[in-house]
Amino acid sequence: MSTHAFSPPQRTLMGPGPSDIHHRVLLAMAKPTIGHLDPLFIGMMEEIKSLLQMAFQTQNALTLPISSPGSSGMEACFVNLLEPGDKVIICQNGVFGGRMKENALRCGAKAIMVEDEWGKAIDLNKVEASLKQHPDAKALAFVHAETSTGVQSDARAIAGLAQKQGVMSIMDAVTSLAGTPVEIDEWGIDAVYSGTQKCLSCVPGLSPVSFNECAQSVISGRKTPVQSWFLDMNLVMGYWGSQSKRSYHHTAPVNSLYALHESLRMLEEEGLENAWSRHEQNHQALRAGLEVMGIQFVVDSADRLPQLNAVAIPEGVDEAQVRSTLLNDYDLEIGAGLGPMAGKIWRIGLMGYASRKRNVLFCLNSLESVLLGQGLSLDAGAAVKAALAVYQ
Amino acid sequence: MSTHAFSPPQRTLMGPGPSDIHHRVLLAMAKPTIGHLDPLFIGMMEEIKSLLQMAFQTQNALTLPISSPGSSGMEACFVNLLEPGDKVIICQNGVFGGRMKENALRCGAKAIMVEDEWGKAIDLNKVEASLKQHPDAKALAFVHAETSTGVQSDARAIAGLAQKQGVMSIMDAVTSLAGTPVEIDEWGIDAVYSGTQKCLSCVPGLSPVSFNECAQSVISGRKTPVQSWFLDMNLVMGYWGSQSKRSYHHTAPVNSLYALHESLRMLEEEGLENAWSRHEQNHQALRAGLEVMGIQFVVDSADRLPQLNAVAIPEGVDEAQVRSTLLNDYDLEIGAGLGPMAGKIWRIGLMGYASRKRNVLFCLNSLESVLLGQGLSLDAGAAVKAALAVYQ
Repeated sequence: MSTHAFSPPQRTLMGPGPSDIHHRVLLAMAKPTIGHLDPLFIGMMEEIKSLLQMAFQTQNALTLPISSPGSSGMEACFVNLLEPGDKVIICQNGVFGGRMKENALRCGAKAIMVEDEWGKAIDLNKVEASLKQHPDAKALAFVHAETSTGVQSDARAIAGLAQKQGVMSIMDAVTSLAGTPVEIDEWGIDAVYSGTQKCLSCVPGLSPVSFNECAQSVISGRKTPVQSWFLDMNLVMGYWGSQSKRSYHHTAPVNSLYALHESLRMLEEEGLENAWSRHEQNHQALRAGLEVMGIQFVVDSADRLPQLNAVAIPEGVDEAQVRSTLLNDYDLEIGAGLGPMAGKIWRIGLMGYASRKRNVLFCLNSLESVLLGQGLSLDAGAAVKAALAVYQ
Repeated sequence: MSTHAFSPPQRTLMGPGPSDIHHRVLLAMAKPTIGHLDPLFIGMMEEIKSLLQMAFQTQNALTLPISSPGSSGMEACFVNLLEPGDKVIICQNGVFGGRMKENALRCGAKAIMVEDEWGKAIDLNKVEASLKQHPDAKALAFVHAETSTGVQSDARAIAGLAQKQGVMSIMDAVTSLAGTPVEIDEWGIDAVYSGTQKCLSCVPGLSPVSFNECAQSVISGRKTPVQSWFLDMNLVMGYWGSQSKRSYHHTAPVNSLYALHESLRMLEEEGLENAWSRHEQNHQALRAGLEVMGIQFVVDSADRLPQLNAVAIPEGVDEAQVRSTLLNDYDLEIGAGLGPMAGKIWRIGLMGYASRKRNVLFCLNSLESVLLGQGLSLDAGAAVKAALAVYQ
C-alpha cells in the first residue's frame, strides 16, 4: 500500500457543523507545537479561559475546553454532576435530548423525560409540571439549540423554573454559543457545554464547558468517584486550574487549542453582540430567498435558530441527489435530516464564519440551479434578489 | 481585555511528548476542513485505519483513532472490556500502571496489582504467579513502555503468559508505538491503545486503539452498557466501521485526523523497521554522549527505551534551573521526573521526528554548556565526539 497526501477540496460548509473556518484559525493550528506544560502554553491557556468566559458571559472560574468533542462535554457534565440513584429531568425535542438520557442512564441515574414534538420549542408548562412532580430531582437538563431540528428554546425561562425549585440546570449550548445570545450568569445556568465546530468556527474536537460554584460544590462533594477518569473535573482542574501550580493530567491537544485561541480572538474583535446580529441578519436574508423559492421552514418563526435553518424538502425532489450535486458540483455542504427527520428536511447552517453574505447568496444560487435541474418551476434570480433586499 | 495572536517559539521537543512535529504534518492540519461525513473524508478515514494496522502490525478490523488523547484510549479499553465485579490483573512499575488501576476501579472492577520497582521491567515470575493465583481474572493489563521511567517490559512474554491462562491482555503502547517493535498479532495482544504525540510525531489529542476478535466479542457480549457513551466502541464502530454505511456518532476532529494521516504516511515511507532502527541508533549516540558527561541511566541497559532516556541528575545540580535554562536560552524542552522520580531524574525523549542526529548533538552541546555554567567539571566537546562516533 502506498497512500497519497490527502488534498481536501475547499468546501463551503453550510451543514450542521463543522462550519467554515477562517484561514487565521487554520494557520494558527499549524504553528509549532510546544509542550503542554510549557510556561508560554500555560499563559495561552489562561487567555483561553478568559475568552471563554466572555463567550459564555460568565464569571465562572471553572470555564475551560475539554480535550475532546462536544459529545464528551455533554458526558463531562453528566458524569461529574450525577451519581447512581440521582434523578434528572431531561427535556427532549430532538436527537440531543435523547443522547442526554443515554448519558444519564449510563451514570446509574434515573431520567425523567419531558418530551416535545421534534421541531417545537420546549414547553415551559410541561417543564414546570415535571419539576413540581419531582421535587427530589437533582438536575434539569435541556438543549438550548437543537441541532437536529433548528429550534431554540427559552433557556432563561427554563433555567428560571429549575432555580425556583432549587434544581440544578445543565444546558447544551453546542450550536447556540456565539450564534445567538447565551448568558450563563444572567440566566442562572449551573453547568453548560458547547462545541468548537459550530458558531465559534474552530476545528472540531474540543468542548468548552463552564460550571458555577454550586455545580463545583456538587462535584467536590460527591460520595462516589466520577466514573470517567479522563473527564473527572477534580483532576482536570489540577491541570487547568491555578496558573502557578499546574500538574499533569493528560496531554492537552496543543495545536487545536492554538486554533481555539485564535477563533475566540476573532470573536472578541468582532464583539459578541455583533456576532449575534450578524447571524440574525444572514438568517433573514437566507429565509427571504428560500421563501421566494417556495421552501418552507420547519420551525415556527419565533423559535428558529438563525444559525441552523431546517427546511422541508420540496415535493418531487430527490433530496439526496440535491445534496450530492451541491457537494460534488458546487463544493457546498448542506445537512441531511437526522432520525425521524431523515429524508424530510435539509439543515442549512449559517454558523460562525459561514454566516456571511457571500455564503447566503452562493447557497441560494446553487440550490436554485440544482432545483431547476430537477425540474422545479422557479423564478430564476428572484431568491438572490429577495436576499439582497434584506441587506439594504 | 484585548489578546494578541499566540506566537509560540520553535522549541526542540525532547521531553516525554509531545515530540517534534514535521512541517508536513503541521501543514496537513491547516488544510481546509471538510465535513465529518463527507465521502472524501470517509475515504481518508479508511486509509488511516489501514495505516494504523501497519503501525500496530495487526490485521484487526477494529483499529482506529479515538477522538481524544491517549488517556482516553486507556479509558476506552477499560470501560469497554470490563464490567462491574470483573477482576483485572494490573502490572505497575510507574505512573501509568497506577492510572490503569484508577480506571479499573471506576469501572467497578477489582484490581489485582502486580508491583515492581519504578525503573525496573515487569517481573515475569510475578505475573505468572498472579495469573495462577487468580485464574478467574478477565484481563491482564500492562504498560509496554513506561513513559514515567523509560523502561520497557517484555510484552511478548507477558501477553504469552496471559494467553496461556486464557486471560485477555490489554497493553499500553503510548510511548512504544513506532519507536520500538510493537507486534500486536504476533504477540497475541487482545487490546492496545497508544497516543499520537510520541513516536508517531503527530499533534497530541488522538488515541489509536486496536481490538482483536476476542476483545470485540467481549464488547458486543456485555451484560451492562459501556459506562461511557462517547467511548462505547459499539457506537464508535457505527461511525468508523463499514465505509458504505457510516452513521453519525460524534463530530470527528477532522483536521487532527489530517495530521495523523500525514504522520502515518511518513512512517510508511520510512518503513516501520527503519523507524525502529533509527530510534535505536540515536539512543546509542545520546547514551554515548551522556556517559562521557558522567550522566547515568536509571534503567538497566537491557530494558531501556531508546525513545525515552531516563537519567539521574548529576550531584550538585539545580535540576529545575537546568531545565528552565535549556527551555529559555536554547528553546530545548527535556522532561522532569514524575511522582517519586520528581527532582531525581530527567527524561530525554528521542521520539519520532525528534529522534534525529541533529537533536542528539544539539541536546548534548546545550546540556554540556548549561552544566558547565553550573560549575560541573566536564571535558568540553567530548560528549558530541562520542555521539558522532556511534554514527560512523
